[in-house]
Amino acid sequence: MSTDDTTTESESKCGASKNDTSTESESKCGASGSDSVSSSSCGASGSDEEEEVGSTVDDFDADPGRLVAVGLGPGQPEGMTSRAKAALGDAEHIVGYTTYVDLVPDEITDDAEEIYSTPMCGEVSRTEEAIDRALAGNDVAIIGSGDPNVYALAGLALEIVESKGATASMLDFEVVPGVPAAQSCAARVGAPLVNDTVSISLSDHLTDMPTIESRLHAVAKEGFTIAIYNPWSRKRRENFEKCCEILTEHRDADTPVGIVHAAGRDDEEVEVTTLGELEDLGETDLIDMTTTILVGNEDTYEWDGRMVTPRGYETKYEY
Amino acid sequence: MSTDDTTTESESKCGASKNDTSTESESKCGASGSDSVSSSSCGASGSDEEEEVGSTVDDFDADPGRLVAVGLGPGQPEGMTSRAKAALGDAEHIVGYTTYVDLVPDEITDDAEEIYSTPMCGEVSRTEEAIDRALAGNDVAIIGSGDPNVYALAGLALEIVESKGATASMLDFEVVPGVPAAQSCAARVGAPLVNDTVSISLSDHLTDMPTIESRLHAVAKEGFTIAIYNPWSRKRRENFEKCCEILTEHRDADTPVGIVHAAGRDDEEVEVTTLGELEDLGETDLIDMTTTILVGNEDTYEWDGRMVTPRGYETKYEY
Repeated sequence: MSTDDTTTESESKCGASKNDTSTESESKCGASGSDSVSSSSCGASGSDEEEEVGSTVDDFDADPGRLVAVGLGPGQPEGMTSRAKAALGDAEHIVGYTTYVDLVPDEITDDAEEIYSTPMCGEVSRTEEAIDRALAGNDVAIIGSGDPNVYALAGLALEIVESKGATASMLDFEVVPGVPAAQSCAARVGAPLVNDTVSISLSDHLTDMPTIESRLHAVAKEGFTIAIYNPWSRKRRENFEKCCEILTEHRDADTPVGIVHAAGRDDEEVEVTTLGELEDLGETDLIDMTTTILVGNEDTYEWDGRMVTPRGYETKYEY
Repeated sequence: MSTDDTTTESESKCGASKNDTSTESESKCGASGSDSVSSSSCGASGSDEEEEVGSTVDDFDADPGRLVAVGLGPGQPEGMTSRAKAALGDAEHIVGYTTYVDLVPDEITDDAEEIYSTPMCGEVSRTEEAIDRALAGNDVAIIGSGDPNVYALAGLALEIVESKGATASMLDFEVVPGVPAAQSCAARVGAPLVNDTVSISLSDHLTDMPTIESRLHAVAKEGFTIAIYNPWSRKRRENFEKCCEILTEHRDADTPVGIVHAAGRDDEEVEVTTLGELEDLGETDLIDMTTTILVGNEDTYEWDGRMVTPRGYETKYEY
């Protein structure tokens, strides 16, 4: 097992936050008392040090165990696949963000040898911890909500494995897919995404804003339905405003928009509205980092409280 | 229950195909002996008649039952969510394409009062049959692989409910999401889709080819990772060739591409290749209508037999 101080440090900093923003759901890391959250995010507040990965494959003598990245799907155990449950049942160690670990059914966590959970910040160090535990000979599952390929940890895990001089094959690295937020939220408002569709994140922590804007222009012009992830944060509200502006340039104000807040959690809220109303809703509790927004295309209509994006059957069949 | 002849007709026509293409996996309907499959698809060969939806809400006296559209996820029972299994367990009637009904575990189908399955053609009449059964007072589940919002039946079901003068609320219409093919295939090749991503279908049955081409240009330029559905059919191979041409205009020939054929089925094949090799692979059995293709962006690299699309952590953290 890793004894890398970075992990503990980053973890304790997150836990030790005393500033006023620590309980905001849109704050990915409670450790910052500065305005630099959107750029430093999970880094340590007040420090310029980058989060560093420590140990390499040569630090481990054991035969490596297995590493599996498991997508839990939406926020309830019944949204998990049987394969995800089996993978977690097989794992000796389960590693993840505390909120996600809490989603795993008790009968699975009770059976695991060890649960390693940390607050949302420390994504890199938590993933490294999982990999170190696997290199040390344990069968490890690292978990996240949704799907490991959707703004999630499948890529980060592979990048860190590589940086340690290990290989994915050595750890029998496997990804167990889950239902992404776009799909679980779309289900709640009917059929908003049945045609060509795009997922785009408004967080400019890892992608710069000009790129995000250019992508929004491109897809809004082309009739894609759009699932917007990470739409809002108090620290970067202008991204959401800019997004609304761009979409309105290309689509009518009455384009249906579905908003799903905190899908599958106790504070879940679902609303079908229009593009013209969207920007003002950014000022309400409905839209924060736990919200997914589904923007219809020019054919989408609202009917009976639901969004319907036709696939074009009506041009082929009479009904 | 509906006694609409259209359903039976369309069903029997599909089953009665004797032409040579009926066993081709890329043929969505075996009933055509002409070249017009890509435009008429599931229509009846040799006839210009459109598939018509018959009965309306007024034809039913009973208190309506419930209608649920269930996504089965990838092609194995272990890829289903617990919620999907529960929804199928609660349904009195299960309606779907024969291949998908076969994916449902026996303990569920054994418990259902009725199973109504038809070959792939007749998507409209099969969906209508499901709705008629619900309007007649039965609790009905209509099923599909992947997710009901991904090129699937959630929208069609709502459109037909509306056309019958019924409402979604009247049927307690619900969508149970599943793992889409993009995610289950991405998992097989590692982490190809971790950044902003788009799903696009090359089938021009319901979307015209100029629109598809324009969408491909737009997203290839903008650094999206791309999941391509329905990439190939013997009847419309030129769509695939055109797609390869467009992608190559905007991305390097060595851009990693993941190909997953028949995910979760006995003839599953997975290959990581490059954009430069893709077009020639269209001539092989690897690429047909059961294949999903995952195209990396400019940052995607192949490593240890897997695709890795970095999210940009390496610009923030050292590891």
